[in-house]
Amino acid sequence: MDLSQRGQWMPASPIRRLTPLADAAKARGTQVYHLNIGQPDIPTPPEMLDAIRNFQSQVLAYGPSAGLPETRAAMAGYLQGLGWSVAARDVLVTEGGSEAILFAMIAICDPGDEIVVFEPFYTNYSGFACMCGVTLKAVETRVEDGYHLPAREVIEAVIGPRTRAILYSSPGNPTGTVFTPAEVRLLVDLAVQHDLFVIGDEAYREFAYDGLTATGVLGVAAQADALDRAILIDSISKRFSACGARIGFLVTRNEAVLDAALRFGQARLCPPTLEQYAAIAGYGLIQKYVPPMVDEYRRRRDTVMAGLRRIPGAVCAVPEGAFYVQPRLPVGDADAFAQYLLNEFALDGRTVMVAPGNGFYATPGKGKEEIRIAYVLKEDDLLVAMDLLVHAVDVWNARRPA
Amino acid sequence: MDLSQRGQWMPASPIRRLTPLADAAKARGTQVYHLNIGQPDIPTPPEMLDAIRNFQSQVLAYGPSAGLPETRAAMAGYLQGLGWSVAARDVLVTEGGSEAILFAMIAICDPGDEIVVFEPFYTNYSGFACMCGVTLKAVETRVEDGYHLPAREVIEAVIGPRTRAILYSSPGNPTGTVFTPAEVRLLVDLAVQHDLFVIGDEAYREFAYDGLTATGVLGVAAQADALDRAILIDSISKRFSACGARIGFLVTRNEAVLDAALRFGQARLCPPTLEQYAAIAGYGLIQKYVPPMVDEYRRRRDTVMAGLRRIPGAVCAVPEGAFYVQPRLPVGDADAFAQYLLNEFALDGRTVMVAPGNGFYATPGKGKEEIRIAYVLKEDDLLVAMDLLVHAVDVWNARRPA
Repeated sequence: MDLSQRGQWMPASPIRRLTPLADAAKARGTQVYHLNIGQPDIPTPPEMLDAIRNFQSQVLAYGPSAGLPETRAAMAGYLQGLGWSVAARDVLVTEGGSEAILFAMIAICDPGDEIVVFEPFYTNYSGFACMCGVTLKAVETRVEDGYHLPAREVIEAVIGPRTRAILYSSPGNPTGTVFTPAEVRLLVDLAVQHDLFVIGDEAYREFAYDGLTATGVLGVAAQADALDRAILIDSISKRFSACGARIGFLVTRNEAVLDAALRFGQARLCPPTLEQYAAIAGYGLIQKYVPPMVDEYRRRRDTVMAGLRRIPGAVCAVPEGAFYVQPRLPVGDADAFAQYLLNEFALDGRTVMVAPGNGFYATPGKGKEEIRIAYVLKEDDLLVAMDLLVHAVDVWNARRPA
Repeated sequence: MDLSQRGQWMPASPIRRLTPLADAAKARGTQVYHLNIGQPDIPTPPEMLDAIRNFQSQVLAYGPSAGLPETRAAMAGYLQGLGWSVAARDVLVTEGGSEAILFAMIAICDPGDEIVVFEPFYTNYSGFACMCGVTLKAVETRVEDGYHLPAREVIEAVIGPRTRAILYSSPGNPTGTVFTPAEVRLLVDLAVQHDLFVIGDEAYREFAYDGLTATGVLGVAAQADALDRAILIDSISKRFSACGARIGFLVTRNEAVLDAALRFGQARLCPPTLEQYAAIAGYGLIQKYVPPMVDEYRRRRDTVMAGLRRIPGAVCAVPEGAFYVQPRLPVGDADAFAQYLLNEFALDGRTVMVAPGNGFYATPGKGKEEIRIAYVLKEDDLLVAMDLLVHAVDVWNARRPA
C-alpha cells in the first residue's frame, strides 16, 4: 500500500506549495500580493476569447491527437515568420508547454537516463524528470554572472554515458536571462559533439528587453547543420496571457522524435479543442498584442529592480527577459522567510507571496538565500508589493539571531 | 540520437493509427463511416457550451492544480448522489480521464512494477504503461463469456511480487461488459488479500442497459472496509458528449495517493480552466440529459447487434453497457480486414472504419480476429455502416484463399 518511489519523491511545486499558507492569510483578512506564480494580470486578447465563444459545432468533440491542422499551421506560420524552416507537420499541439516537456523527455530518455540543466531552472523540469525516471544533471549558473552559462568545460564535466539531452529555457524562468547567440550555439555544438538532443524552452520568446532578441534553438541548429537534434518547447500561455488555455507545442524536424511524441499524444487522445481556436486567433494578433505587453513588462521589471536595490545586501543582475527575477536576499533561509511572509508578516493588512528559490535547484542546499519573483502585477500593485518585501526583509532580519 | 526504448516501443493507437488510410479514402471521394473511435455524435448539452461562452474574466488564467473548488465540489456532489462518501477534497480534476490513469499509475508504480488488466482492455492503458515503465499483466477474458471475469485462481495466477494494482473498466471499453457486484467485490477482495490497489475506470458509469446498474469501486471498497485501496477514474467526455473538453477526475480516499497525484498535477500546473465551468453545468443537468442519451445508445446497440447477427460465424455476446462491442469476425486477420475496408472496399462510394481488435490486447497474437465497434453514429448512419460491414465481410472472404 505504499506509494511508488516517484510518488514519494515527487517534489511539491515551490511556486504552489505555500498556497495553503496564503489561503490561511487571506482567511485572516490579509491581502496577499502574488509574486510567486507567473500568472499575468494582462487581459487575454478578447479576440481569442471570442474565437472560443464563436465555436459553432453542437458537439465538443475530440480533435486530432497532433492538434487541429489549422492550429498547427498557425504555429508553423508564426515560426516561419521568425526565419525558421518549420512546416505544420513538424508541430505537435500539446496540453500546455508542460506536456511538450514531458513528451520530449520520454521520447528520448528511459529511466536512469540523464538530462543536463542549468541551475536555477524551471522548477517543473524536476517534476517531470521524477515522473518519468530521468535524472537531471545540474550545471550551476550564478546570480553574479546574471545566470549566464559557465565555460564549456564546466558543462562538459556533467555529460556522461547516460546523458541524452541538454534542456534550457531562454528567456529564462526563473532567471530572466536571455542566452546570447554564442551561448545557444555552444549548447548546440555540445549536443553535436556528445551526440545529444538540445531542448530549447522558448515560452517567453518575445519577452526580451533593452533591444535584445531571444535566440531560437531551431535557427541555431539549422546553422550548425544539427536540426535533427533540436526540440523546441513552446506555449501560448505567456505570449497571449492565456495560461488557463493549456495549449503548448512541441516542434522538431526530427521525424522519429515527432512520431514518438505523436504516439504519446494518441494515448491521451487530444489537447483541448476549443482553446486551439483561440490559439489561431492569437497568432493573427501577435504584432498588435505582444509589443505593448512586452513594454509593460519591461516597466514592471524596472519597478522590481528599483525595489530590490533598496534591500541592502540583495544581489541581482538586471534580468534581460521573461518576467521573473531570482535575487539573492540577505535573509538567511529564504524558504523560512517566504513562509514568514504568509504566516506572520503583514503591513496595513497586506503581505506578499514569493517562491522560495531552492525549488529551482536540483542540488540540495543551493538557492537557499534566493527567491523567485514573478512581476505579473500592475505597476501600482507591484510598487506596494515591493514596499512590503523591502519592509519585510528589515523586520525579519531585526527578529532573527545575528 | 536514438529514441528511448519507450519512444520506440510506444504503441500507436489502434483506434487512430489507420487514420491516414481513412484520410486517403476520403481524398478519393469515399465516404467513411467512423465506428473506430468513441466520439459520440450526440450534442453536448448547450448549457455546458453556454457556461464557457459566459466566462466573464478578462484573463484566461491558471486555475488551481487540483481543479477549481466548485468543479471538485460538483463532482463530489454527483458521487455522493450515488451513495458514496466523497468530499470535494478527495477529487482531483485532470486533463481527461487519460491523465487520471497516468497519475494513478505513477503514484503507485515505479518502472518494472506490474498492473493486472483484463484482456481485451482499453488500449491506452498500454500506452500509459509504456510511457511510465509499468508492465501490464493480462488476464484473458473471452468473447464467449461476454468478457466477464474468469475464476479467482486465474486472476491470482498473474499476481506477483511486483504487482501493485488491478485496473479495469466497467462498463467496459472495448467489451461493453458491466461487471456484476460480485465481480467488483472479487477484485477488491483480491486487492486486500494481495496488498494491491484497485483502479476502477468508470467513465461509462451511466451507460448500462436492460435494467443493469454499474457497480462502483468506491461503494464496494467501502463495504469491504478497503476504501484506501480504491482509485476511481472518471471523465465528463462520454457522460456529456464532451470529449474535446479534456476534463477528467481522479477520486480516492487514500490521502497519500491523492497528495502524490496533486504533486504530479502541480508539475503540469492545471487542467483547462474554461471547460471546468462546463463540467459544473453538466453535473447540474445529469438527470435531464443522461437517461435519454442512454436510451439512444441502447437502440444503437440493438442495431449493431442485428447487423452482427447477419454475419455467419461472428461471435459476440450482447454488450451490457458503454457504447462498444468487440465481436470476433470470421475474417482471418482482422487488422488486414480493417485496412482493406479503407484501402479497397467501397459500396456506392461508402465504407466503414473499425478499430482492429489486437490493439486491445497486451498478449501478442490475441484478438487477431476481433474488431472494436463504437456505436456512436445516428441510427440511420449506423444501419448503413452495418450493411457496409456485413457486405465487406462477404467480399473479403470471397477474395481471400480458403
